[in-house]
Amino acid sequence: MNIWQLPVFLVLTSNVSPFQFGELFQYVDSHQQEYVETLRDWVAVESDSSDMLKRSDLHQMMDMTAEKLRAMGGKVELVDIGEQELPDGQKLALPKVVAATFGSDPSKHTVCVYGHVDVQPAKKEDGWSTEPYNLTDINGNLYGRGASDNKAPVLAWIHTVEAYQALNQDLPVNVKFIIEGMEETGSNGLEAMIVAQRDTFFSNVDYIVISDCGWLSRRPALTYGTRGNCYFFAEVEGPKQDLHSGVFGGTVMEPMTDLIGILDTLISPSGKILIPGIREAVAPLSDEEWKMYQDIEFDIESYKNKMGVDQLMYSSKVDLLAHRWRYPTVSIHGIEGAFSGSGSKTVIPAKVTAKFSIRQVPDMDPAVVKKQVTDYLHSVFAKRKSPNKLKVTMIIGAKPWLADTKHPLYTAGKAAVKRVFNVDPDLIREGGTIPIARTFQDVTGKSIIMLPIGGFDDGLHSQNEKMSRYNYIEGTKLFITYLHEVAKIKKTPV
Amino acid sequence: MNIWQLPVFLVLTSNVSPFQFGELFQYVDSHQQEYVETLRDWVAVESDSSDMLKRSDLHQMMDMTAEKLRAMGGKVELVDIGEQELPDGQKLALPKVVAATFGSDPSKHTVCVYGHVDVQPAKKEDGWSTEPYNLTDINGNLYGRGASDNKAPVLAWIHTVEAYQALNQDLPVNVKFIIEGMEETGSNGLEAMIVAQRDTFFSNVDYIVISDCGWLSRRPALTYGTRGNCYFFAEVEGPKQDLHSGVFGGTVMEPMTDLIGILDTLISPSGKILIPGIREAVAPLSDEEWKMYQDIEFDIESYKNKMGVDQLMYSSKVDLLAHRWRYPTVSIHGIEGAFSGSGSKTVIPAKVTAKFSIRQVPDMDPAVVKKQVTDYLHSVFAKRKSPNKLKVTMIIGAKPWLADTKHPLYTAGKAAVKRVFNVDPDLIREGGTIPIARTFQDVTGKSIIMLPIGGFDDGLHSQNEKMSRYNYIEGTKLFITYLHEVAKIKKTPV
Repeated sequence: MNIWQLPVFLVLTSNVSPFQFGELFQYVDSHQQEYVETLRDWVAVESDSSDMLKRSDLHQMMDMTAEKLRAMGGKVELVDIGEQELPDGQKLALPKVVAATFGSDPSKHTVCVYGHVDVQPAKKEDGWSTEPYNLTDINGNLYGRGASDNKAPVLAWIHTVEAYQALNQDLPVNVKFIIEGMEETGSNGLEAMIVAQRDTFFSNVDYIVISDCGWLSRRPALTYGTRGNCYFFAEVEGPKQDLHSGVFGGTVMEPMTDLIGILDTLISPSGKILIPGIREAVAPLSDEEWKMYQDIEFDIESYKNKMGVDQLMYSSKVDLLAHRWRYPTVSIHGIEGAFSGSGSKTVIPAKVTAKFSIRQVPDMDPAVVKKQVTDYLHSVFAKRKSPNKLKVTMIIGAKPWLADTKHPLYTAGKAAVKRVFNVDPDLIREGGTIPIARTFQDVTGKSIIMLPIGGFDDGLHSQNEKMSRYNYIEGTKLFITYLHEVAKIKKTPV
Repeated sequence: MNIWQLPVFLVLTSNVSPFQFGELFQYVDSHQQEYVETLRDWVAVESDSSDMLKRSDLHQMMDMTAEKLRAMGGKVELVDIGEQELPDGQKLALPKVVAATFGSDPSKHTVCVYGHVDVQPAKKEDGWSTEPYNLTDINGNLYGRGASDNKAPVLAWIHTVEAYQALNQDLPVNVKFIIEGMEETGSNGLEAMIVAQRDTFFSNVDYIVISDCGWLSRRPALTYGTRGNCYFFAEVEGPKQDLHSGVFGGTVMEPMTDLIGILDTLISPSGKILIPGIREAVAPLSDEEWKMYQDIEFDIESYKNKMGVDQLMYSSKVDLLAHRWRYPTVSIHGIEGAFSGSGSKTVIPAKVTAKFSIRQVPDMDPAVVKKQVTDYLHSVFAKRKSPNKLKVTMIIGAKPWLADTKHPLYTAGKAAVKRVFNVDPDLIREGGTIPIARTFQDVTGKSIIMLPIGGFDDGLHSQNEKMSRYNYIEGTKLFITYLHEVAKIKKTPV
């Protein structure tokens, strides 16, 4: 048994008085506008990791993040994680990973906060009411690409440390940061970096906290699982260049016709995945799980209203939650290379690439899914007897993640939520993918919690993404409290 | 019988001496660079009629055209043809039509030249080797959007009149111009203008010449038919905004899945149109037609090489020509509203609009096709039991056109080609749509010829569109000669 385990617990708990929270909370409240301005500066950087042309913005975003943490006195490193290879063979430098450390007291727990500062693509003409990279406050909601996913949560963690510093209060735990810039495209290069630093940067990390997600309703939540994602490109190539559909139409097998034909074999109108082997791999729904879902606060009507749809794929709460969280699904995102403008164009596109993805759940394995999808599409394509060429590539293969809700990290989360919001949190899963959760679990063996502060209606990946001032500010208070609660966890023998 | 009919014929033929052609041809040759520079100025104007944001460029293009003709002493009018209504209900001024007249000698024939100066969309990143709106000369080929379709042919006609004027030679016929700016999107507003001016501007027009097409091979050609085109938007609307595919995927019926599903029912892998009633409406291929196709110079291998495909939809020359010219086909051009960028985006697009078109041939009727397609897609969609909303709109409904190759206009064409190129032209049809041909036929009852000067490999509507200097300059000579040949046609009683 390690000599400093018990005393630490006593010292820390004695530190946590309501008075101190009051002071910290007051500090947060009085700095609200400053926090919003920093978020505005961050949102203004178009750190879209999927767009090669914006790579310099992304590098700038990583530099800004590092600079912010350095100015706070953190030990900060910008870790080079190498290059990515583009489909055409070109190489492009990956954004460096920001690794920062605040405190190295061996008597304290060490919490590593993970976040990302890259964003999804966004253009005004996609249907945004405001300029996506100009943070705009409308009735207390801060609209901007990346506001909720994941810039405000990252800033809330930074402001947590800053608040302790400003009030000259000791951090109840050592805090580390791992902030990356490739999350939206599959965290390219991060896993290798974690493997490389497992016995250095990560060696003294006890717990990993991820705030890259949102609540399910107005009730705060703790998240114990995420779906993975296999993202595919299916490219059909025909003529060497686009053709006039009048002049050539009727004599060539059009790549678009072939592509539409194979895409139509992925999923049935009722949502049944048609690729052999996919559904068979899914872990069966247990009675216990069914019971948990039954107890979750989830209003189907408001879910429908939020999306503006009259009818969902399923009508019961359990079915809906299960299909969001623990069943796979296929989404066809779009087609590159075809005409996508407004107006009309009479073109036969020469090369068209569909983008679709399949969400991953236990016990699916991305490597197997890759083969299942590739084989299936090639077999379907072969039946068309087309002279065009099909190429199927899996560009992201992120595994799902699942945690044990009985772990002390979750007990600490429940207590922190109760203290800040005076309610018990929902225990939920996340339909989206946070690849890092699974990677951390596999590589470091550390325990992980996902502690969201994003609202249920933040519009991640969508037009008009936002973060409310309420969630941003109260979320910061939640993180402040959470560090105290984690400090209470009894240290276990190394 | 009109008193001036016979003498005219005699006077005109005596005018046409080889010497005069020599002088005119020499003039054209010595002004080649000037012609290229004018084409450069015209190509530089981004007169894309499908892009609402470029409407002011399009207006500018019409003004430039009018100004050019006015400077030559033509009687020029910019005819206001009203507004177009956008899908969202907004109204946008249509580009004015340029109507110009050179000569009004009642003893001469009056030839009306039709052309257009709007272009298809083009962006460098679509795969152009050069800037599409910067005319670039590579080995005698002039690359630029609109170079061949239809700016150089319009200029060749203008230069034809200019050459006569410069040499103080009388035009052998009166020449009128109708130059429009909406051809690429269906000649919106033009038909009403022709109807309105049928008894004024068009009353003394004898023949209409259209040069908005190209040769089939290196052999010059006369064109006697075009396919029409019905262009459809099929919009599927679901959620009120784009959704994160991880967070929502599995619970909503995705509009893209529905759209892919209905698009896949339009045409079979082997090119068979599946919409009931379409194939039944097509006029049967006659033995005479089959024979004509057999005699046309058409090299299947070079056609394949040009497109860079290994295998075509059909293997015989007659089948290929017939399916280019006199059978309908379906082309799916693309999808608006889905993700179309490079990279990846995990989005469920909320509203997606497919753009597809069906080429029209005798005896199809666009009004009937509109109903057939709309009814069919709605019936297919209904079977999916999706809560999403389908809206099918036909935004262009252009009829096919077919001329009598025994008409004197074609005899004149054969003679002009023979004189300039020393070969007999191929008699061909055009797979593309030149709506004006059919409109002129229906409204004015005048005889029409299509007299192309574009090369067979000009890449209309495609990347790297070009016009060769050879075709541009020799084409101008062809038009000069053609006016002489038309002047020889015996005037018929009014």
